[in-house]
Amino acid sequence: MSDIAKPQTLADLRRLLATLPGPGAEAAAAAAQREPQLTKPAGSLGRLEDLAAWTATWQDRHPPTMARIGVRVFAGNHGVAARGVSAFPPEVTVQMVANFQAGGAAVNQLSKAIGADMRAVALDLDTPTADFTQAPAMVETAFLQAVTTGMENVEADLDLVCLGEMGIGNTTSAAAVCLALFGGTATDWTGPGTGVSGDALDAKTRVVAEGAAFHAEAAGDGLEILRRLGGRELAAIAGAVIGARLKRVPVMLDGFICTAAAAPLALAVPGLLDHCQVAHASAEPGHRRLIDALGKAPLLDLGLRLGEASGAVTAASLVRSAVACHTGMATFAEAGVSDKDG
Amino acid sequence: MSDIAKPQTLADLRRLLATLPGPGAEAAAAAAQREPQLTKPAGSLGRLEDLAAWTATWQDRHPPTMARIGVRVFAGNHGVAARGVSAFPPEVTVQMVANFQAGGAAVNQLSKAIGADMRAVALDLDTPTADFTQAPAMVETAFLQAVTTGMENVEADLDLVCLGEMGIGNTTSAAAVCLALFGGTATDWTGPGTGVSGDALDAKTRVVAEGAAFHAEAAGDGLEILRRLGGRELAAIAGAVIGARLKRVPVMLDGFICTAAAAPLALAVPGLLDHCQVAHASAEPGHRRLIDALGKAPLLDLGLRLGEASGAVTAASLVRSAVACHTGMATFAEAGVSDKDG
Repeated sequence: MSDIAKPQTLADLRRLLATLPGPGAEAAAAAAQREPQLTKPAGSLGRLEDLAAWTATWQDRHPPTMARIGVRVFAGNHGVAARGVSAFPPEVTVQMVANFQAGGAAVNQLSKAIGADMRAVALDLDTPTADFTQAPAMVETAFLQAVTTGMENVEADLDLVCLGEMGIGNTTSAAAVCLALFGGTATDWTGPGTGVSGDALDAKTRVVAEGAAFHAEAAGDGLEILRRLGGRELAAIAGAVIGARLKRVPVMLDGFICTAAAAPLALAVPGLLDHCQVAHASAEPGHRRLIDALGKAPLLDLGLRLGEASGAVTAASLVRSAVACHTGMATFAEAGVSDKDG
Repeated sequence: MSDIAKPQTLADLRRLLATLPGPGAEAAAAAAQREPQLTKPAGSLGRLEDLAAWTATWQDRHPPTMARIGVRVFAGNHGVAARGVSAFPPEVTVQMVANFQAGGAAVNQLSKAIGADMRAVALDLDTPTADFTQAPAMVETAFLQAVTTGMENVEADLDLVCLGEMGIGNTTSAAAVCLALFGGTATDWTGPGTGVSGDALDAKTRVVAEGAAFHAEAAGDGLEILRRLGGRELAAIAGAVIGARLKRVPVMLDGFICTAAAAPLALAVPGLLDHCQVAHASAEPGHRRLIDALGKAPLLDLGLRLGEASGAVTAASLVRSAVACHTGMATFAEAGVSDKDG
């Protein structure tokens, strides 16, 4: 009997997606019962109240806990980077992984600031994916291996996992995935990434259009779109989202690339991203369109466009605050505070 | 010689406001020099980059520090509460102060979650201010005493101070202050507060209009408007903003009432709120109008409307994250990462 957590074929993966657990109804009910008893006007903590209920629901336990926050940054290299789509050279991917491991990147400081457990996971950086304008980015085994790596990097004892990525060329890949998933034009989804503009941005946009056109036969099949136009780090993020759902770990998605990596799952199975929040609206212009397409509402809007889970970790502190209020506040009865209308 | 930090008359206070220190130009320059060297695309941390520069500028030191975050919640009682403007009875103010002191309120959990030093300061709760539709809310000595209490509660060793309030009836007071400061109609500034609607909201709106009309002679004088239409906790917040400027402590303002308490200072001396961030856009409808009138941009938009510094403390974690990135990240040279365009 095959290990459900190690899909060997796309068909295995599709079967796995069809059997993932849903929301924890009892935990959700317990959260809904406690919230109005807390010493504040009803609804006055806004989205923090929603986040507390969401955490309980997807942890499938009440009270929810937020002691252990994981940060997983997946890194991959892209064949399409050879087309000059980034303002930075491809060797920056491996250099930044070293920077993550040495503790010098933004995500290291952000993780330390909230006491989160951060790990960078490099995916076969010596072997970039194929240029997706010429061939599928990954063959099936490479794709499934990356998905499995993502699944394995979400441990069941995490209270929340923040996902992110690093990979020179990967806004190009993310834009192509979005174009193939949701339609529109390449211009709708292509932006400056690390900082391309003018002719270079036009060229990047053409690469996105070429890629989506070349793989038109995958239309309507989220997993195939991700295999053909994504990258190893995008596949790993999708895997981490799946692993988190299996293990009852709520997910904080980061910006454009991270959200694009998860989006194919929503096309594959409606509701499959219900255990995920989108941390922020990135300055990368395609992100808002993508968030809208997924029916999500970002938690932050701070003009971030760094990736590497930086927005996800920044937003994680909101979830921690939400859970702290929900679990730690006194009730009206406990505090001897008069309820509304005396 | 009188103590500048203890103004005895409104004239003393006006003199103090005219002599408050400005931005730290050297610290600002040092922050601007370091930021582009850090291992990320220029500008990719968006408002977190701005927050780091702002912290250095108003702490007047580089690198900025964020080890000690203070939370000061001022509480006062309002004569106008007798007009039935709140959904909660006036005794809730003192009950909630007890809840703050027992650690049971939202702000306690939020402060603990970020390791902040939280203090509730009750201002003469047994003596509500006068009903401002009949008389000035405070005589000059009471007003200056509250301002001084606010100033004294910001210690110079804080890296950031989060301000907030509690006081049944104080959205009514805040709305009247805003109407007197910025004009418009009472409807523009009056909202549900803790949860009034329908006829009760109409009555509250009339009280706001009456109050502003009764004190029309104070037009154009921010401090007089605050004395006549504010409350002790609003005056203390204004005092805390002044004390923080004197002591080089950046300020995080909370929601509608807290921002309304600080707003008269901007009318008194342009730029006097430059060392303050507005933490969030409250669900209380007048807050966005007020934020716009002050030329500020809120950091969060989470539908909060609790007060008691809850939004300010939630946003403080963003400042801590910003400072952590600015001070802790490796430079391109240190990390051996190729800069843009190789």
